[in-house]
Amino acid sequence: MATRIERDSMGELEVPADALYGAQTQRAINNFPVSHTPMPPAFIHAVVRIKLAAARVNQASGELDNERGEAIQKAAREVLTGIHDQHFPIDVFQTGSGTSSNMNVNEVLANLASREGVDVTPNDHVNMGQSSNDVIPTAIHLSAAIGVHETLRPALVHLRDTIDRRASELSHIVKTGRTHLMDAMPLRMDQELGAWSSQLNQAIERFDSAMQRLCRLAQGGTAVGTGINAPDGFAEQVAQELSEQTGLMFAPNDSFFASLSSQDAAVELSGQLKGLACVIMKIANDLRWMNSGPLAGLGEIELEALQPGSSIMPGKVNPVIPESAAQAAAQVIGLDAAITVAGQSGNFQLNVMLPLVASNLLTSINLMSNTSRLLADRAIATFKVREENLKAPLARNPILVTALNGVIGYNAAAAIAKKAYQAGRPIIDVAEENTDLDRETLERLLDPAVLTQGGIPE
Amino acid sequence: MATRIERDSMGELEVPADALYGAQTQRAINNFPVSHTPMPPAFIHAVVRIKLAAARVNQASGELDNERGEAIQKAAREVLTGIHDQHFPIDVFQTGSGTSSNMNVNEVLANLASREGVDVTPNDHVNMGQSSNDVIPTAIHLSAAIGVHETLRPALVHLRDTIDRRASELSHIVKTGRTHLMDAMPLRMDQELGAWSSQLNQAIERFDSAMQRLCRLAQGGTAVGTGINAPDGFAEQVAQELSEQTGLMFAPNDSFFASLSSQDAAVELSGQLKGLACVIMKIANDLRWMNSGPLAGLGEIELEALQPGSSIMPGKVNPVIPESAAQAAAQVIGLDAAITVAGQSGNFQLNVMLPLVASNLLTSINLMSNTSRLLADRAIATFKVREENLKAPLARNPILVTALNGVIGYNAAAAIAKKAYQAGRPIIDVAEENTDLDRETLERLLDPAVLTQGGIPE
Amino acid sequence: MATRIERDSMGELEVPADALYGAQTQRAINNFPVSHTPMPPAFIHAVVRIKLAAARVNQASGELDNERGEAIQKAAREVLTGIHDQHFPIDVFQTGSGTSSNMNVNEVLANLASREGVDVTPNDHVNMGQSSNDVIPTAIHLSAAIGVHETLRPALVHLRDTIDRRASELSHIVKTGRTHLMDAMPLRMDQELGAWSSQLNQAIERFDSAMQRLCRLAQGGTAVGTGINAPDGFAEQVAQELSEQTGLMFAPNDSFFASLSSQDAAVELSGQLKGLACVIMKIANDLRWMNSGPLAGLGEIELEALQPGSSIMPGKVNPVIPESAAQAAAQVIGLDAAITVAGQSGNFQLNVMLPLVASNLLTSINLMSNTSRLLADRAIATFKVREENLKAPLARNPILVTALNGVIGYNAAAAIAKKAYQAGRPIIDVAEENTDLDRETLERLLDPAVLTQGGIPE
Amino acid sequence: MATRIERDSMGELEVPADALYGAQTQRAINNFPVSHTPMPPAFIHAVVRIKLAAARVNQASGELDNERGEAIQKAAREVLTGIHDQHFPIDVFQTGSGTSSNMNVNEVLANLASREGVDVTPNDHVNMGQSSNDVIPTAIHLSAAIGVHETLRPALVHLRDTIDRRASELSHIVKTGRTHLMDAMPLRMDQELGAWSSQLNQAIERFDSAMQRLCRLAQGGTAVGTGINAPDGFAEQVAQELSEQTGLMFAPNDSFFASLSSQDAAVELSGQLKGLACVIMKIANDLRWMNSGPLAGLGEIELEALQPGSSIMPGKVNPVIPESAAQAAAQVIGLDAAITVAGQSGNFQLNVMLPLVASNLLTSINLMSNTSRLLADRAIATFKVREENLKAPLARNPILVTALNGVIGYNAAAAIAKKAYQAGRPIIDVAEENTDLDRETLERLLDPAVLTQGGIPE
Repeated sequence: MATRIERDSMGELEVPADALYGAQTQRAINNFPVSHTPMPPAFIHAVVRIKLAAARVNQASGELDNERGEAIQKAAREVLTGIHDQHFPIDVFQTGSGTSSNMNVNEVLANLASREGVDVTPNDHVNMGQSSNDVIPTAIHLSAAIGVHETLRPALVHLRDTIDRRASELSHIVKTGRTHLMDAMPLRMDQELGAWSSQLNQAIERFDSAMQRLCRLAQGGTAVGTGINAPDGFAEQVAQELSEQTGLMFAPNDSFFASLSSQDAAVELSGQLKGLACVIMKIANDLRWMNSGPLAGLGEIELEALQPGSSIMPGKVNPVIPESAAQAAAQVIGLDAAITVAGQSGNFQLNVMLPLVASNLLTSINLMSNTSRLLADRAIATFKVREENLKAPLARNPILVTALNGVIGYNAAAAIAKKAYQAGRPIIDVAEENTDLDRETLERLLDPAVLTQGGIPE
Repeated sequence: MATRIERDSMGELEVPADALYGAQTQRAINNFPVSHTPMPPAFIHAVVRIKLAAARVNQASGELDNERGEAIQKAAREVLTGIHDQHFPIDVFQTGSGTSSNMNVNEVLANLASREGVDVTPNDHVNMGQSSNDVIPTAIHLSAAIGVHETLRPALVHLRDTIDRRASELSHIVKTGRTHLMDAMPLRMDQELGAWSSQLNQAIERFDSAMQRLCRLAQGGTAVGTGINAPDGFAEQVAQELSEQTGLMFAPNDSFFASLSSQDAAVELSGQLKGLACVIMKIANDLRWMNSGPLAGLGEIELEALQPGSSIMPGKVNPVIPESAAQAAAQVIGLDAAITVAGQSGNFQLNVMLPLVASNLLTSINLMSNTSRLLADRAIATFKVREENLKAPLARNPILVTALNGVIGYNAAAAIAKKAYQAGRPIIDVAEENTDLDRETLERLLDPAVLTQGGIPE
Repeated sequence: MATRIERDSMGELEVPADALYGAQTQRAINNFPVSHTPMPPAFIHAVVRIKLAAARVNQASGELDNERGEAIQKAAREVLTGIHDQHFPIDVFQTGSGTSSNMNVNEVLANLASREGVDVTPNDHVNMGQSSNDVIPTAIHLSAAIGVHETLRPALVHLRDTIDRRASELSHIVKTGRTHLMDAMPLRMDQELGAWSSQLNQAIERFDSAMQRLCRLAQGGTAVGTGINAPDGFAEQVAQELSEQTGLMFAPNDSFFASLSSQDAAVELSGQLKGLACVIMKIANDLRWMNSGPLAGLGEIELEALQPGSSIMPGKVNPVIPESAAQAAAQVIGLDAAITVAGQSGNFQLNVMLPLVASNLLTSINLMSNTSRLLADRAIATFKVREENLKAPLARNPILVTALNGVIGYNAAAAIAKKAYQAGRPIIDVAEENTDLDRETLERLLDPAVLTQGGIPE
Repeated sequence: MATRIERDSMGELEVPADALYGAQTQRAINNFPVSHTPMPPAFIHAVVRIKLAAARVNQASGELDNERGEAIQKAAREVLTGIHDQHFPIDVFQTGSGTSSNMNVNEVLANLASREGVDVTPNDHVNMGQSSNDVIPTAIHLSAAIGVHETLRPALVHLRDTIDRRASELSHIVKTGRTHLMDAMPLRMDQELGAWSSQLNQAIERFDSAMQRLCRLAQGGTAVGTGINAPDGFAEQVAQELSEQTGLMFAPNDSFFASLSSQDAAVELSGQLKGLACVIMKIANDLRWMNSGPLAGLGEIELEALQPGSSIMPGKVNPVIPESAAQAAAQVIGLDAAITVAGQSGNFQLNVMLPLVASNLLTSINLMSNTSRLLADRAIATFKVREENLKAPLARNPILVTALNGVIGYNAAAAIAKKAYQAGRPIIDVAEENTDLDRETLERLLDPAVLTQGGIPE
């Protein structure tokens, strides 16, 4: 491999001849052969956005001359197109501050600018007024906020809307409710699906709340939070630039010291992703069980057949999308556990598990986004209902006797239900024999469809 | 032990003669000898509050006659004083719906009413218009909301205010900042403590947000979410009663089906408690390290001596309050992991890990409340600063050269720092020799106290 | 409350007049009003066992005179009866070393001895040759080893044996297997239950392996691991005494420094308890689903009816024991997460989350022990099989076509299965029409009972 | 992109013209655009090893003709070289059984064989006698066992040996011990490092124990555990073939039903990896703190300088390898939490989170392996000790008075220590004034180097 010599404050070393990065990036490549997984492009792009914003602010304030400012901006815009993503190869498991990734961006932008004939150095110009210690926490908030706003939230809205549409289509279908997995009072399918929709709505509410704290940035705190080497107003101006770039409302955090030393907003967002994972798990499991059988299972619905289900059992079709979703949910729960460890790992002025936090947060956002769309489009939107299977147990269900509580009292009703269970007979027949209520009254009181409307049966 | 015979829909069994509860409670006592830990009184009281509210609503609507209604209310108020807490002995690890605890309350209230000569039955009167499936999720929200509002939030405010007071007292103290645990640029002690205060403020914000969803109740959904057997308006009226009882703003959730089948608000609250635990861990660890030594440690502060630290090493004193706090934080993280498992455990119309959720949530609220007060009163409020230890390394610190970046550039500054490290000499001396800057300028530029104010050194 | 004055190296303070403990215990009571949960008696008793062993060793070596040695032994034996358990009230969330609990035991034993007229001091005599830093890690290993050996392992054996007995009784019952919850090839009920039994056997193997490391003790390391102030041979002799007391084989760990600074054996044991919790969760969930319905569920078995299942739905019976078990499993998973945080919390010579580790480990051991016995006795031993429900889908199941793979190939078999699904017809009829195989051959090849024996159908 | 038409039991679809895989793989690619991360090559290779073994067994038994058998073997060997890894692109978040990955291997091997002119079909020949349901669990055990044996264990041995070598070099260095982070009795550096070495030794023991259960395979259980369509002896013969391929000792599990429906051995291994992560975290944190400062920290050691530590603070060098290691440890803890969710996700005859388990397990093995080597080679092997910093506090330390306990008693010693702390004087001076011991005796009793040898000071 052809190489060239690069130099940093520690000395010289060889770098691949065609690499856009410099010595510090190469040191980090050499130092961290751990996971062989680079930082996510969405994170790198967030760092680049900060560099773009800082260059504009520094140029406007006169700290940076126009030529260098323009050159950095141009380089940043080029990197944001994604064409140089392979020049950011540093492992997730690197220095805990993410300094290596910050320097990687500083070096690539300086190099691109220098190729245009402008003398730009990584530390003095690209990194001007900044420290890894404010850039990286800012990039975590920025990339996560963009991910939630542009990817996750729309995916959740899509899933919710798909559920709402199916609920509306299926509002005529009455089924036996299940509590403790046991036959319970009836409900309609739109009510059942409506629970999922409501859960998603409140999940969205939670993300909207978390966004308020994600949008408060570390930028301006520099090395330890005091803002040393950042000019007055820098924090506000960079936040303003980032707001304009993204359409979100960023502002400096009220304490840069907190922004650098802790990752509380990331822990919060990860916690809300974990909560969403619980919602996805509930939906996935309900779908799996509704689809089960069809002969020795519940057989309530038939999910779209997407692929042969078995290498040995011909004709088998499995609920593969809910299974994929459940695994994604499990992974998000696991990545949250790792972020929780990271969230405890600040000492004094810096948390030093930042790259891990960044990577896991963006992974979870993507997993939940893609999973939500798949669940919507390949499971919720396309399942068919096996109405005959739902109808069979509906009217026989001894638990319908609940509707008679107000008339005959709980204990008398329990005795009737018990008889119906033991004899395996329809509840209406047993109730007719054991109460003073006539058949017509019982038919009215025990009508499953009417009972789904709630209230005191009359 | 003297016993009496009680009866329920399954038949008769013996109950201790002086027990206020009845047959179903006794069955549950017999069935669940698991942890020998009863449900927390705060949870039982929340169930009782619901019974009180329901009795008032049922009485007002005429569903329940005045005599029974008054008797139930009186019994409920008596139980809320705490004098009957020992009559609620059912294990946390019981039926997943918490039906046993709901029936325990129904039985005790019915029994107390009956002792007054009023014929009140557990199911038909105390439980009127309710199901365990809406009562228990409501009681989880209610007890947690009360715990957050009355206990946790004031404790967090107290801790924050104590920190703010100490920060203000210590604003003249400058110390060497630490990033990656390594000497970094200086900051003031009020800035360092201010990070903790800011973290707590945002933690409070998160609890305030979670409270919005905690205040949406399941009550009115009854058996499966349809509201069967609950009269029109029951949900709103009970929520109104509970709001009046507590001063909080409760309302029915938009989907009872979601309220019964999932525990998303509990998962959210637990996640925020976990986030708070990370904050507490950060504060506790910073205190522990600041207090370390005093000879072979950092020796920055001296925590109040509360107890002899060692059974073998005479004179040893340890940072016991931060250690207690760190363990409480660890436990909250663990209890959140259990609640996360529970949050995935809904199938169809009911989540069946409700007692676990209730118990862990209230435990975590209490742990964080008590820990916050202890940290405030026995650690933050009373530590002394060892100023001489802070001063020694302050001005020698080679990293102060950062202040010269704007004048001489990062690379030249790095070379100076390196020399200072190698020679073990004060940075100002090395800088004087290696730059054109005169001593006076360097003294101004490298003054640690000035550098804590941030901005570009001039 | 009547009090008396006690004194320790920090001075005097008031103690309840009838308390067996002294000043240091009282300080800890005052210092740690956190959870209001004292350390588990099993842990306190383990500390007492160490004191008993140490007294015997010290007496034998002549370090301790006979009168004091006998007095300490007598006091220890008295405490081990359990009659003084209320004199160990210190909160779990105390000093991270557990020094307070060690001193609590030292004080109670010294006090009991002094009441007999023997001058015994807590630090110089009861604690002779020991430090909290070796006593507490030893007590964690000792109490957990006793818990595993005397409580957990027998409970697991009982559960496994109960399963084996039921499996043997039910070996004639053939049912439709389920993979992905979908109808799959048939198996027998003894095979299905045999999976649980095998899982438990391997869980027992894991505990047996963990016991090897649990039985290596910290005792003898004293303050930091060097063994300062402990005479030569003390470690081996105390381990020998504890072996004789318990019937287990204890020995000193190969590195006391590791024993004090880490909690790896506790982390391992907790991890194995977490693994067992997964097993219990699998068994509990299988039971819950087998029991589901009975009309709108799988209805394969009927668990013993233990209590009315609903406060509103008369006649409902729920799978309460598996639900209790699943919650216990969830809690063990959570307590393991807390222990994992603790396991990361050693710095230099001491881990300072020891009381948390002790408490959670013993809680998990008890939860899994009690749950295993309940599952065995109130669920596995007593369920009935609804054979008619198992038979209905068995022979119709299109997946039985798997048995024809070897004869007609996977793709042809898949086509037949697909037709059978679409037409809702018995697989044998469709196979007869679409292959050259005669009815008799097909009856032989597709016999569910024969297919449970595995091998290539002939 | 050029495509060709492929077909499976569900019909036709387009596949990239140069893809070695067929229709089912393409369906899975289309169905699971979730994480865009394919299954790890080590896992795919394990599936291929099973195919190789099965082909040899089927060929030997005559079930498979020699031509097909040889063709499959040749194809498998070719894939094992790694040259076709890009033909296994299916996402981790796929069908829970991993059927898609099994079919991916079946299709690629069949295709490679067909290209040689041999008519081999994926299901009937490559998959002969197998089901995804036994292949995938077997591949999890196989790939993990290979990873532990060939990668993790040697890395741990290397780390331990490196520690032992440094310990031996540093055995003359005495330092102040720290418990609760506070000055405690002295120890030698070889003792301190020896704790890490001992921890690693016991971690290795745990992996050796887990390997016993990892080496018990599902293969032979086929579809549901009964072994349908697998000939007699198939399980044993495949295990024998895999043993010969790998040098490990594989055997069929005692219950295939357990092997398919649960992932207990994977949960165990993951739990042990989590335990190892706690060990790595301890070592990494000790190193970070020993290296801290150097002026405002402990400054005990100086880790090798690997890269500039800050983009803003010139000359800063950070402990980047321990930080990387701590993050890797955090991630392993998180991946274990996900595997724990997966370990609870079996229902009836199959666990359906198998691809997640496989991927996370192999990721954790690699993270811990690479981290262990980095810690060994770039931190442990190369740090220097700053002896002067260790010496300064050593003899002054008031806690050395512990050595006088046996002579003057704990309380008198405590009074002396207290005075020494308050006056900031060397302990020996205060002891001389406050005891009857002469200077010479005190010098002997309080010699830090001697005290590291333990025992009762004389």
